[in-house]
Order: sequence, then C-alpha cells, then structure tokens
Amino acid sequence: MRGTGSPGLCLRFQGLRLGALPVPSTPGVACRGVTRTVQWICLIYFAYVNLPSFFFFLPVFCVDNSGVGFSPAAASRRERPGVGLGREERAVQSCEQAEVGAEGTEQGQRTRGTRDWVFLRGVIGSGLCIFSKFPILDTLLYQYSLNGYPYMLQHGDWFCGKSVGLAVIKISGIVFNVYVTHLHAEYCREKDAYLPHRVVQAWELLQFIRHTSKAADVVLLGGDLNMHPQDVGIRLLRCWTGLRDAFTETKRFEGCEDGCTLIPSNRFTVKSELQPFPLGIRIDYILYKAGSSFTVKCEELQTTTGTAPGTDIPYSDHEAVMATLHVQRTGQAAGVTPGTAVPALVEVLSEARTEVRVGLLAARRQRYSSGRMALLALLLLLLQAAAALGALAGLADGQPFPKLSFALLAFLALGVLLLATGLHLFHTIEVKMLQGTEEQMRMALGVLQERPGRS
Amino acid sequence: MRGTGSPGLCLRFQGLRLGALPVPSTPGVACRGVTRTVQWICLIYFAYVNLPSFFFFLPVFCVDNSGVGFSPAAASRRERPGVGLGREERAVQSCEQAEVGAEGTEQGQRTRGTRDWVFLRGVIGSGLCIFSKFPILDTLLYQYSLNGYPYMLQHGDWFCGKSVGLAVIKISGIVFNVYVTHLHAEYCREKDAYLPHRVVQAWELLQFIRHTSKAADVVLLGGDLNMHPQDVGIRLLRCWTGLRDAFTETKRFEGCEDGCTLIPSNRFTVKSELQPFPLGIRIDYILYKAGSSFTVKCEELQTTTGTAPGTDIPYSDHEAVMATLHVQRTGQAAGVTPGTAVPALVEVLSEARTEVRVGLLAARRQRYSSGRMALLALLLLLLQAAAALGALAGLADGQPFPKLSFALLAFLALGVLLLATGLHLFHTIEVKMLQGTEEQMRMALGVLQERPGRS
Repeated sequence: MRGTGSPGLCLRFQGLRLGALPVPSTPGVACRGVTRTVQWICLIYFAYVNLPSFFFFLPVFCVDNSGVGFSPAAASRRERPGVGLGREERAVQSCEQAEVGAEGTEQGQRTRGTRDWVFLRGVIGSGLCIFSKFPILDTLLYQYSLNGYPYMLQHGDWFCGKSVGLAVIKISGIVFNVYVTHLHAEYCREKDAYLPHRVVQAWELLQFIRHTSKAADVVLLGGDLNMHPQDVGIRLLRCWTGLRDAFTETKRFEGCEDGCTLIPSNRFTVKSELQPFPLGIRIDYILYKAGSSFTVKCEELQTTTGTAPGTDIPYSDHEAVMATLHVQRTGQAAGVTPGTAVPALVEVLSEARTEVRVGLLAARRQRYSSGRMALLALLLLLLQAAAALGALAGLADGQPFPKLSFALLAFLALGVLLLATGLHLFHTIEVKMLQGTEEQMRMALGVLQERPGRS
Repeated sequence: MRGTGSPGLCLRFQGLRLGALPVPSTPGVACRGVTRTVQWICLIYFAYVNLPSFFFFLPVFCVDNSGVGFSPAAASRRERPGVGLGREERAVQSCEQAEVGAEGTEQGQRTRGTRDWVFLRGVIGSGLCIFSKFPILDTLLYQYSLNGYPYMLQHGDWFCGKSVGLAVIKISGIVFNVYVTHLHAEYCREKDAYLPHRVVQAWELLQFIRHTSKAADVVLLGGDLNMHPQDVGIRLLRCWTGLRDAFTETKRFEGCEDGCTLIPSNRFTVKSELQPFPLGIRIDYILYKAGSSFTVKCEELQTTTGTAPGTDIPYSDHEAVMATLHVQRTGQAAGVTPGTAVPALVEVLSEARTEVRVGLLAARRQRYSSGRMALLALLLLLLQAAAALGALAGLADGQPFPKLSFALLAFLALGVLLLATGLHLFHTIEVKMLQGTEEQMRMALGVLQERPGRS
C-alpha cells in the first residue's frame, strides 16, 4: 500500500435508492417476511404519494479485487423483484452465506456483528442506511434543524426527519468517513418555498463533515441532495469541504446522459416536473475527498439506465449511482485537497446567506400572520364569553344567538386558536434556526475577510 | 511553549448560569436597552416557574497571566445587579473598551469580529453561550434527539431545544474544542421520567465529542449536566470520552462544600427538592482532556458561595464554577489520556442500555395508549356520523339526542382524536430515537467485546 507506484485499494461505492420497503429493525434481515404483493402495493402507493424519504438511499461498499462484495439489495433479490443489480451476483452469494452463518471464516465472523447499520430518525424513519462489508467502527447521526413544514402533508418531508448519517469504516488500515444524506425535495423549481431550508441543510451538512472528518483518511458522501449541479447549496458544500464530484472527475462513465439520476422514462417520476429537463436531472451524488497523505481517483462511474433485468420495473424512482474509487497512500503528508480561493468562497457564501435571509423574511411573515390569527381567535372567544356571561346575568333580553351556532362558533374559535398558536410556535422555531444559520454565515464571512487563507 | 520544563499556558475557564435575560440577537450587546425593573420581573418569574433553559450557561475564558480577561457577565454589571463577578474588574474594562472600539491595538481589532458567539435553538433559545476573548474559528450546534415532552408545560424543557454547542478556539497555537451543554433537568429523583432521555442525551453528547474532537489539542466541556457525580450518564460520558472532572482533579478548591452548585441557601432553588441533600448537589461541571502531545492540569477550582457582593441576590439559581487550567506541550505525541478498562466500559454501557430499554418500554406503552385513544375517538365519530345519517334518512323516530349535546360530543371526539393522534406521532418518534440509541449501544458493546482495546 505504501509508495507512489503501489496499486492501492480499489473500492466500489454504490448508491441506491430502493423502493418503499420499511427500514428493517434488525440489520441484515431485509424484510423477508413481507410478501411480494404487500411490497408491490407499498411500492406503488408510496411512489404515487411521493414521500421521498420513505425511499432508501443505500450506499454499498464492494471490494472489486477480491470479488467478494456485499449487496443487501441483491441479498433478497429472489424475494424482491425489481431490486438488486445483476452485476453483484457473486457478491450476493458470499453475503448470504455470511449472513446465515454458513461461512465459518474469520472474516465472516469478524464482520458479522458490525457489517451493516441502519439509521433511524423521524416518524417513519430517516430513510438512511449504510451497509458495509467491512466493520463499522462508529456511527453518528445529525438531524438537520429545518426540514419543511409538518402541515405540508402532501410533501411529507417533515415527518421523515432528514439527517446526515456518518459511519467510520476501516479498510486495510485506511479510515473512511462515509456520510449518507437526503436533503429536502424540490417540488417546484420556479417557486421553491423550501430553498432556504435546503441551503440551511447544505450548510449544516458541510459543517458536520468539516468537524467530524478531521481524523479521516478518506471522506465519502453519497446521497440524494435534491440539488442541480449548479445550485447554490451544492456549490457551497463543495467549496467549503473540498469534496470532489465523482461524475466530473471520473475517467470512464457509463449510464444515463449527463449522469442524470431522475429521468423522464422512469415510470415513478412525475413527468410534468421534468418538462424543462428532457434528459432528466442529476440530483444524486457521490462526492469524495482524500486526507493529507492519500489520493483518491474515480476510475469509473455508472448509473443504472432504467428497468431491472428480466422485468419492466425500475429499481426505484431514481437511478442508482456506482463509483469505483482508487485510493492510494502517497507516503508524505501533503495538502492534497485543493483549497478554493477565498473570493469564490465569499461569493458562494454571500449567495447562500441571501437565500437564508429571504427565508427568514418569509418565516417572519408567517410567524406574524399566525400570531395575528391566534389573537383574533382569542378575541372572538373572549367576546363570546362576555356575551354568554351577559346572557346568564340576564342583561340581554332573550337569546341573541341560537345555542348550537354559538357553541359551534366557540369550538371553531378554539380550534383556530390552537392551530394558529401551534403554527406561531413552529414558525418561531424556524425564525430562530434561520437567524442562527445567518449569524454563523456572517461569522464565517468575517473570518474569511479577515484572513487571506482558508481556516 | 515547547519542552517539558516550560511554564505552559494558564487559562481561566469560567462557567456561569445567568438569570433570565433573553439571548441577545447581536453578540456583544448584552441587553443594554432592557431596564432594571423588567429584568428583575423576568428573573423572579422564570426562577419561580423553573424554566431551566431560560438561564444561560456562560463559560468565559480569561487568561490569568496577561491580566486581561473577558467577562460579558460583568461587562454590563452596572446595568444588571446581581450579575458579574467582582474578581473580573480589570477584565471588564478591557473588554468594554474593545467592544466600543476605543482600544486600537491589533489584538483588539483581531478579536473584534469573532470574539463571542451565541447559540440559538428552540422556541425560546437554547440557553447556550460561549464567550471568548480569543477568536472563535468555528462553531457547530448539535441538537439532542430527545428532550422531554411538549405537553409537560410546567417543565418546559422541550421548548428550549437542549443542545450541545461547540466552539473551536485557537490560543497560542493550541486548538481548544470548547463544548457547552445543558441536559434535561431532573424534577423528581425517585420517579425520574426523564432519566432515559438524559441518558440518550449523555450518549449523544459523548458521541458528538468523540467525533468532533479528533483534531483538538485540548477538549473542554462545561455545562449544567443535571446529573449527580455518580449517575450513570456522567460515568458513561467520562468513561467513553476520557474527560476528567476538574473538581476531583484540582489542586486547590475554594467554594461550597463538596463542590455543590445547587445549594439550599440559594433563594431561587426549590427547598423541598433538596431535602435529601442538605449540602446541596453538584450538577454543573467543568471537564477537560488533553490531546496526545499536551497535558492539562487543574490548578484551582472555585465556586461562588451565594450572593453577589453588595447585594443579597445570588448570581443565578446555580453557583458559578471557575477553573484555572494549566496547559503544557509535552513535546512527544504520547497517549496521555488514560484509557478506561474495557470491563468498566462494558459495565457502564450495559447499565445505560438498561435505562434506555426501560424508557423504550414506557414510550411504547404511551404510544399504544395514545393510539388506542385515537381509535376510540374515531369510532365514536363514526358512530355519530352513522346516527346522524340514520336520523337524516328518517330511520329513527324523532331525535334521539338533543342537537347541542350531539354537536358538543362530536367536537369533543374530534378534539380527542387530534390530540391523541398528535401524541401517538410524538411517541412514535420517541420510540424510534430510543430504539436507535439502544441499537447504537448494542453495536458499541459488540465492538468492545470483540476487541480487548478501545476503539
């Protein structure tokens, strides 16, 4: 492994989005008891209502040179049509043997307990998973502070508790920090109400990576970032972390044109949303970065191009992305990561800060209007109470309102009061979060402008 | 600074809990516009209703040997009675000059933009603050996944968004990772419903520290941990991170007996809660750890012992803690941090896991009962709808119920349905979080039992 001329380590990093199968509570047992029909109903239903986080993003590690990989997707392929990639045939068998304990080798036993990991978060799970053939040494989950609105039930992102998961994996003495994430979806590009939230998520993601990856030899990030390659969030993320995009860096590419992962020909995608992009869009990424004494090169990048072999059903609503990375120890600790120039950092950060500010203004408006609504409802309730007390004290002749309408109105006012108060609280939290991020960005800009080098 | 015989760096780390003043939105401007009366009303009201997170925990750095410190608490002492420590007289003046820009030195200008930082989180703020005389290079905030229940309004912890804040500070070329946190309060030691939440928070805190402190030379943690020194959470935290308790390690101690920070003689404490502990309890800590080529020693630890000078009002409901730490570069990279023995780690982790499991059972029970309540309310609503339809279709003779009672019952059922559904969702999230932590602990135990050394 040492020396410049050594072959290095060749790794396969595979990013999948699987269809609507609940995260298995015991790792390694991939919903074996669920019948085919139930799975199909789930798959079609959830693809239809577009609950994006109910789809898994599964980055899977496979070592190419040993020929023994691990693909949980393929592990239960026989029971799950449309899931599992044909190329992993041998990997599958090895994995299944290890899983049932038939393989008695040391490797099999060593990796048994720590081979895979499931991240849980939110009401219906975070939808994040990292499966690894190699022992996972440590994990951490960071939940983004903003993630849509609970009352946007038709989108449902809020319930999924969008997070970034980290697994520390040691392969041949090299420490890999593998991050997996899923950012808030973009439902309407022209009038994207979730853009500030996504920018905040990108900021928190880059902060989390920077703070937790200092002891890592190689950093890998895979995920559905829900951002086009030129969007402000992804530029911010790449500039600040120094992560490189496997698609732009790869030597060989095979798959959909322009590396698109959300393509119109997929039967689960919403065609109207993709009208401005006839080729589709690229929103699923594999990004990587080497530590000071390593180099990482992307040898090959692949995406799936439609349906699973022998069936007309796609693997998921997004195309899977697979990268083959070549990791090499350089021997000397040198600053391999190219530092982005300070003016570029300042520019992208200012742009991101503007987006956060726009979001802050909108959140303040919503907080104000929900507060006003709560006050009005309270006033109405107080008026009604006064009227009722007046009637009881015999101040009014007869009964000014029919009892039923009076009670209905009171209940309506109470309902509005509760709802508006809840909204007010929620938007207050949103304002705090946006303010906090804006403040952090301001501080980062200050640090940048004070010093000509990167911190 | 190099060499074994060098004097090293002597730092003052000061942990305060200040009274109920809202977190200032612009750092450095500590509520100058708020009048004394309003402050007093706030202070007494919030101490009375025991909203613990509305109190600040302010760790303040002062360099002893230069004689120039920074104490924001004291900075506005003239406007805030009962806040500010008399010993920081000189520090105050320097700070105020730097703040108003009168001090034109390079040091003053360099620290101007990055001198202090405010963490915001939750509806009424996280209550966390780090003020530093030295430039803060970077910050990160991690919100705990569990933090009490929103319907426990009398405790209010949920609304405060308990978090851990990190500030990376460079002093004389040494990288300090300063963490500040506030865990969920303990309201009843015998029947502590929040114990599983606090254990989860302690687990997340130690995970966060371990993952983010790998590049740090010195790690400092200050905060109101709301745990007695022998509680499972604090043992877990200390065992897994290798953090040392300034109180047990200090050469000199001055202050309340046994280092207590919540003492019965403080007028803001609830006397009945402290009856089993006549001396008080120690729940505010300063913990520290040195990196591989540094040593840290606690030279002196102090707590305040009651009221502020010249007044009969205490600084806060807790006593402030101040530690003087001596940081020295050892020259060689040696494993200075004493590794806890694996059996001890396994024991404390198993104990913590049991607590999480107890919490999981309780959360499942609550999820079940709220789900059943929601179902019953739904059934009642459906029955009412059937009865109403029956009456409309003329199936029933006359009217079985008076209209008003019928409408009231329907609204009641609807209210119960909404409330119970909300509770069910909340407890589902709680179950997921506890499950996730339990799973992480299971994995950590597996890793420990596989290997005799620490990961």
